Parts: sequence; C-alpha cells; structure tokens
Amino acid sequence: MEKILILQQILLAFAAAKLLGRLAARVGIPAVVGELAAGIILGPHLLDLVHESEFLESLAELGVIILLFMAGMESRLKDIVEVGRTAVVVAILGFVFPFTLGYGASAMFGYPLAESLFVATASVATSVGITIKVLRDMGYVRRRSAHIIIAAAILDDIFGLIVLAVVKGVSLGTVNTAEVGLLAVQAIGFVVFVALLGPQIVRRRAPHMAKRRIEFIFELALIFCLGLSLLAEFIGLAAIVGAFLAGLVLSELHEFHPLEEKFLPLSWFFVPFFFVLMGTFVDLRSFIEPSVMLEVAVFTVVAIIAKAGGAWIGAYRETRATANEVAVGMVPRGEVGIVVAGIGLSAGAISTDVYISVIGMVILTTVVAPFLIKVAFRPQPSPTGSPA
Amino acid sequence: MEKILILQQILLAFAAAKLLGRLAARVGIPAVVGELAAGIILGPHLLDLVHESEFLESLAELGVIILLFMAGMESRLKDIVEVGRTAVVVAILGFVFPFTLGYGASAMFGYPLAESLFVATASVATSVGITIKVLRDMGYVRRRSAHIIIAAAILDDIFGLIVLAVVKGVSLGTVNTAEVGLLAVQAIGFVVFVALLGPQIVRRRAPHMAKRRIEFIFELALIFCLGLSLLAEFIGLAAIVGAFLAGLVLSELHEFHPLEEKFLPLSWFFVPFFFVLMGTFVDLRSFIEPSVMLEVAVFTVVAIIAKAGGAWIGAYRETRATANEVAVGMVPRGEVGIVVAGIGLSAGAISTDVYISVIGMVILTTVVAPFLIKVAFRPQPSPTGSPA
Repeated sequence: MEKILILQQILLAFAAAKLLGRLAARVGIPAVVGELAAGIILGPHLLDLVHESEFLESLAELGVIILLFMAGMESRLKDIVEVGRTAVVVAILGFVFPFTLGYGASAMFGYPLAESLFVATASVATSVGITIKVLRDMGYVRRRSAHIIIAAAILDDIFGLIVLAVVKGVSLGTVNTAEVGLLAVQAIGFVVFVALLGPQIVRRRAPHMAKRRIEFIFELALIFCLGLSLLAEFIGLAAIVGAFLAGLVLSELHEFHPLEEKFLPLSWFFVPFFFVLMGTFVDLRSFIEPSVMLEVAVFTVVAIIAKAGGAWIGAYRETRATANEVAVGMVPRGEVGIVVAGIGLSAGAISTDVYISVIGMVILTTVVAPFLIKVAFRPQPSPTGSPA
Repeated sequence: MEKILILQQILLAFAAAKLLGRLAARVGIPAVVGELAAGIILGPHLLDLVHESEFLESLAELGVIILLFMAGMESRLKDIVEVGRTAVVVAILGFVFPFTLGYGASAMFGYPLAESLFVATASVATSVGITIKVLRDMGYVRRRSAHIIIAAAILDDIFGLIVLAVVKGVSLGTVNTAEVGLLAVQAIGFVVFVALLGPQIVRRRAPHMAKRRIEFIFELALIFCLGLSLLAEFIGLAAIVGAFLAGLVLSELHEFHPLEEKFLPLSWFFVPFFFVLMGTFVDLRSFIEPSVMLEVAVFTVVAIIAKAGGAWIGAYRETRATANEVAVGMVPRGEVGIVVAGIGLSAGAISTDVYISVIGMVILTTVVAPFLIKVAFRPQPSPTGSPA
C-alpha cells in the first residue's frame, strides 16, 4: 500500500474513533462502543475507507498489548493471588457452562459434532480487552472484581488453548494426548514461572534500576513486554497474557519510576486501532436474514447467560456486588472468539453458516458488554474489596 | 504476514536499534549510526530477520513524522522567521551547488542528459531527520544553526518538488509549465499559510484550550499533526514538512500544556524504526565492485562538498561557528534522495547502475553526517545564537 494511503487510514481511524468515542461517552454510552462504531462505519462493509491490513493489524495488536500491559502495571501480584481461589472457580464454571450450553444450542440447530464443538469453544473464550478498557475509563480497574476477571481470563485462555487443541484433534480425527499434555504444562508453567519469579527478581534489582534514566527503563520495559507477549504467542497463548504478566512484574518498580505515566500516551495512540479493527469485521448486512438472526440471537443469549451465570456462581462467595461485576465482566468474547471460529473455518471443520452466526454472537456479546458493565459497576466501593 | 512474525520483527528491530544505539553512544559514535547498523545487520542482505514491509514502513513513517513534529514544538515561529534571510540563501546555494556539480560528476562518467539530471536532483534533497535526531541527542536542537537548517530544509523540499517535476518532464520529453507553476504556488502557499496563520489562531484559542484535559489536547495535536503531514504529501511535499509546521503551530500551547512531554514516549517508541528501515536498504555487497566504488566515492565527495560548501557560503554572514554547523547539518540526503532515485528508476529514466551509485551516495552522506555534526557542533553556545 502506498505511504499516503497508510497515513490516510491511520488518521481516519484515529480521528473517527476518538470523535465517536467522545460523542458516545457524552450521551452515556461506553466510549469503546463509539470506537467499535467508527470501525463499522469506516470498514469495508460501509464506507470502505479503512480495511484490515498488515499495518492496521500491527497497530491494533500493539494497542491491545499495551492495554493489558498497563492493566498489569496497575495490579500487584498479591492482588491477583488474593483472588486466586475465586478466580479458579469463576474460570472453571465460566468455561463449563458456556461450553456445554453452546454445544447444546448448536446441536439444537442440527449442526454435527465437529461444528458444534467449535461453536462451544468459541463460546468459551473471554476477551478481557473490552472489559479492561471500560473499567479503565470508569476508573474501576483496581477493584477486587477487576482482579478476579483478569485472573479468570488468564485461566480461561489456558483452558481455551487446551480445548482448542483437543477440538481440532477431534474434528480431524486425531487427538494427540502427549501433545495436548505438553501444551498444558508449557502454558501453566509459563504463567506460574513468570508470575512467581518475575516480581521477586525485579524487586531485588529495583534499587539499582532506580538510578537509571526513565528513557532507559521505558525501553527495557517495552522490550520485556513485547518479549513476554511473543513468548506467550509461541506457546499458543494469547499475546495479551504475556503483556499482562509483564506489566504485573514491572508493577514492582512503581515506587521508583513513573512507568505508567510514560506508557499512557502510547495507550492513547494505539488502543483505538484495536477497537476500530474489531469494528471493520462487522458486516451488518449479513445478519439481515431471519434464519441467521434467530441463530445469532439464540447463540448470543446462551453465550451471555451461560458465561455470566457460571462466573456469577463462581464468585458467589464474594459479595453480591462483586459477583455481579465479575459476571458481566466475563461476557465479551471479542477477538478470541473470532480467532477460534476462523481456525475452524480455515481447517474446514465448520461451514460459513455457522461461522457467520458465531461471529454475530461474538460481536453482540462484545457490543452489549460495555452497557452491562456500566449498569453492574456502581460508584460505591464494593464492601470487601479495595475502593476503586 | 502472520501476527507472530510482525511482533517478532517489531521486537527485534526495537531491541537491536536501542542496544546498538547505546553501544555506539558509549564509544563516542552518534547513536543513530548504531540504529542504522541495526537495520543493516537485521536487514535482508545480512541476517534477513527484518525486511521492508507495510507495517515497518508505517512505523518508520510515524517515527520520522513524530521526530519532526517534536522539533517543531521545540521551535517558535519567530526563531524561524529570524533566520529567514540566511535560510533562503543557504537553501538556494545548497541547491545550486549540488545540482550543477552532481550533474557534472554524472556527465563525467558518461551518463546521458536525463540520467544526469536525476543524479543532480538526488544530490540536492536534504534529509533533516538524521540531523535533528543527532542534535536532539546532543541537546542542541534550539540553536540558531538548527533553525537555519530546518528552515533551509523546508525550502529545499519545495525546490526539490519543483525541480523533480521539471526533470521528470524533461526525461519524458514533456514539460508542463502551468502544472509546475501550480505545484510551486501550492507548496509555497501551504507553508506560508500554515506558518503565518496557524500560530495566531492557536494563540487566540490557547486560554480556552488550557481548561481541557491533556488527553484531549494530545489527541487533537496528533490529529492536527497527521492531517498536516497528509496535506503536505497530497501537495507533493514530504510529510515531515507538514509535521514540522504542525509542531511549530502547537508550540504556542507551550505554557498551557506539557505536550512535548506526552509525545516524548511516542518518539522513544517510533523513531528507531525509521533508522532501522533506512538500514535495511543497505546492501554492503553491491559496493564491492571497484568501478561502483569509484563512482560512489566521487558522487559522495561531490555531494558533500557541494552541499556543505553551498550552505557554508549561504550562512557566511552569520558567525563562523554557525556557518560550520549549518554546512554539516545539511549534508545527509537520507530517504529523500532514495525516493528521487526510486522515481527515476521506476519511470525508466535511469539505469540500475546509476541507481546503485546514487543509493551509495545517499547512504554514505547519511552515515557520515552524524560524525561531521559531532565534530562541528561545540558545547559552547554560539555567540550570536540563543544558547543550546
């Protein structure tokens, strides 16, 4: 693509996202919905001014990486460990419910085993990007429920990785148990290793690092963040799991360097591209057909109820408010669901019919979630959690 | 390209540029030379780990845009106007000398009219990116000589645009005088209009803007910067001319908002990609042949002497120190020379032989310039200029 066209798309995407995001916020709609709308309007299905491309994808990827990196920097390992038990239950129930109910809904529409398994898997993945952005905008990212959501989403990603490997195997008629086991060990090992050792090492080096210039620390932090993101991708996890862990580790430098403040402008620049790109995938016209609309509606309702219900039961032992917050925070499927459906489609395991319905479900859960989050999260600090 | 490959190249390019840049600085070599070396080593001609691609180009383009935008924010219109007369003479002589001598050198090697005209044009363009980066690293970007260099480089770009249109016309046998005239009027009109009206408007709106949050001002500033860059490209000027003007206009907000501080992390992230990309173009092996080496050497020496000489004579009425500083600051040809040669090659006006020699000249002037700048710029404030 010509340089001038690239510049033009960057300008258009950024300006439209910021404009519609601010307009949305002004009338009480979450800003991300405005940014998604910018992508839908500029995208190939309406104005065709911005489309999926290598540079847009890389800006979007950097955007979601920096978003989760910053969420990590604003958390502390002890916050995450503290909610560990609840997060495990939330992740398990938030996985089992959508998987079984998603499978059931798909089977109900007469789809065969392999396709239904993919629908089930796509119903499972939690896309924490949207939730984190909305919570950041509202100033609630340090709440106990936010920590539960992030921890459960990381576990979800590990479950999802393992299940995807199994489902791919089933649909192709070959399940390699050793391979799946290795995958699981690698993924769990990576998360545990980084989360437990990283903060310790950084804490020990922190006094030494305190003497260095902020530019140098910024560069090291960015390299560390990109490195862990890449490592996570290599293992098969989402890059954002690595980015969040990198932020968590570097949160130990908090007292020595204003790292968050320096990364904030990067997030202002990059993050909108993620939501614009998500918007460009949406073709509103493909959902006009009644049979498609019905299937999308059923998949969506099942996906929301199953996920929110599972998560709510998982967080039941917390306060009522926290359980509500966790339940809605786990709803958006976002890019992860799209990726799962894409893998199914390109592997020939699912048809375009199912694909469109799954994409519709993913989009609706993603668009609905910010509204649900706005309703569920109240300005009062939740009684047992730290105040927001 | 796969997402994981993109992430990998971003990490490699960034980490290598920062590492080699710091190593270079530690042994007294300008950091940009280290960043260029990172590109040469990672590039397709050596390790082949990073290559020209849409996303790398867009990161690089954003890098050089932000670099010049920040240079603009650190200048004031009156600083630029103050050096106006000198800058005009520097630009004219820094144009006439390299053009005539570049033409002569090319004719000497027996190249026909059209090819020699392209060599002459490629010898003319000043790439101010390198100079500005080196001066920023040394802390001299607010010097009088820096203002002269930037102003002259903008004029250079306008001259270059006009001459390129004429040369293209001549080599294709059609010179459209009206078109060339329109181009000139547009380019000059754009620069004068923005530089004169912009600061006035911003100064009037500044007290109102002072009440807004910095995030909002940052977004507006970025949109303004990208918009003017794009407008400059549409007219046929370099995007960086628009970016510099945008920064110049927004420097009026200086007392109200710490904009520079917020853009600094963006420059930390983006700028290295520009120099890495420039490095990836370099194939050291193509210069091994003796006849090529001779041609490159002659072109380079002529280009440096002609440009530095012309600029030095142009700045003669300033102090001796300022004249020296301006002379070396105008030396790098950078990406502009590569673009001119590329246009000539793709238009069929020049052969690959000449193309390689021109690229060699561009690379050498670009690599040599940081050393020359380091020698010429002294830590003492130049007597007549503002202290650095």
